[in-house]
Amino acid sequence: MIVLKLGGSVVTEKSSRETVAGAELARAADAVADHDGELVLVHGGGSFGHPHAERHGVTTTEGTRDARAVTGVHGAMEELNAAVVAALVERDVPAVPVHPLSVASRDAAGSLSLPVEVPGRMLGEGFVPVLHGDVVVHEGHGATIVSGDELVVALARGLDADRVGLCSDVPGVLDGAGDVVERVAAFEDVADVLGGSGSADVTGGMAAKVRELLELETPADVFDLDGLASFLDGGSPGTRIG
Amino acid sequence: MIVLKLGGSVVTEKSSRETVAGAELARAADAVADHDGELVLVHGGGSFGHPHAERHGVTTTEGTRDARAVTGVHGAMEELNAAVVAALVERDVPAVPVHPLSVASRDAAGSLSLPVEVPGRMLGEGFVPVLHGDVVVHEGHGATIVSGDELVVALARGLDADRVGLCSDVPGVLDGAGDVVERVAAFEDVADVLGGSGSADVTGGMAAKVRELLELETPADVFDLDGLASFLDGGSPGTRIG
Repeated sequence: MIVLKLGGSVVTEKSSRETVAGAELARAADAVADHDGELVLVHGGGSFGHPHAERHGVTTTEGTRDARAVTGVHGAMEELNAAVVAALVERDVPAVPVHPLSVASRDAAGSLSLPVEVPGRMLGEGFVPVLHGDVVVHEGHGATIVSGDELVVALARGLDADRVGLCSDVPGVLDGAGDVVERVAAFEDVADVLGGSGSADVTGGMAAKVRELLELETPADVFDLDGLASFLDGGSPGTRIG
Repeated sequence: MIVLKLGGSVVTEKSSRETVAGAELARAADAVADHDGELVLVHGGGSFGHPHAERHGVTTTEGTRDARAVTGVHGAMEELNAAVVAALVERDVPAVPVHPLSVASRDAAGSLSLPVEVPGRMLGEGFVPVLHGDVVVHEGHGATIVSGDELVVALARGLDADRVGLCSDVPGVLDGAGDVVERVAAFEDVADVLGGSGSADVTGGMAAKVRELLELETPADVFDLDGLASFLDGGSPGTRIG
């Protein structure tokens, strides 16, 4: 079973508010349609979720009790998710939506709980669950953002994934010269080029991605759209993490 | 804590496809906005979910593995849910959506599992979760319909509700003369007028409602929009069941 994330930078025009990247989404959906085997998809927020989150000052740790903020972020992500699911269903991929706000939550310490009974049963019935970055209820903080990367890690653990793939707008983890690093076995390998754990992107950035993926027992590959078909065919394009 | 269901016949124009009953929804939202205290809302499908379910031949027991059927029913219900949530948020009710497809499922025997961690945490953070009739994955059957009434029973049990209210388009359980029965303590009391357990409405009908509500420890009231404010104020309009 594969957990595959399509980054927000792949499925949306990041510079154009609430705009689906039609051609890129079509390419990604074509690759997924050509694949046989169990698959769970996650996509990021790109130009749908992020502007709403920023406007309301909501991050993975800064919460909100304003239902307008919650429904603003969530509504935009539902719309993007519907577009992703529709692109897949058009190609006869049995994709069905799973909205994290309905099923995931954080405890007071910020630890994410994502019960996998529903996506597990969906896989068992032949469906392809499609999750997304979202806002989730957070004990003592109202609601905070959950990133697609966090969901990937939780799904890979909970569903005991065989492989994890992250398709973003870069061909892998890049070294100082801009070349793709073939393998990252420990964070120290790339700490210099990734600039430590800090990142302006509250829901991830490459440093946070690498740290989280290293904690997984399952190996993970980071690649771009050019590498997606190869990854789904069993290859290891881009950077192998772990 | 109150679990309140707004029937599909209240929030939609049943005879007009995918049409929100604007005036009725506004009245219901006004009554909810005037209420203080913990509340979980559920709404039915009316002219949104039912036509899609019928077209694809999906019921609470007849499943589908067609993602077009799943996303057709679910997408229509997401749209209705967004309208209900928006009407509440406009009135400063901190309403947030919870989509059953993402969190509930049925086992091979058809038994519904609805984990209540998320709605419970939402209540704890001051939000009003708003669920809806939907399609859910069903082990061995693909996906089947879950009715708003089933969700009401599962939520009342799981969250240990103090009161349960069902607001529909009739003022209560009616006797042979068309008058409201004040109390139903056992199904036999009304078996004659309700015509047994059979019903043309696959997701409920009054007989199925009464049977399910009688199984709850929590007393339930069945009333129409004229009784909603009184119910939320602690009154018992319409028919008391249990």
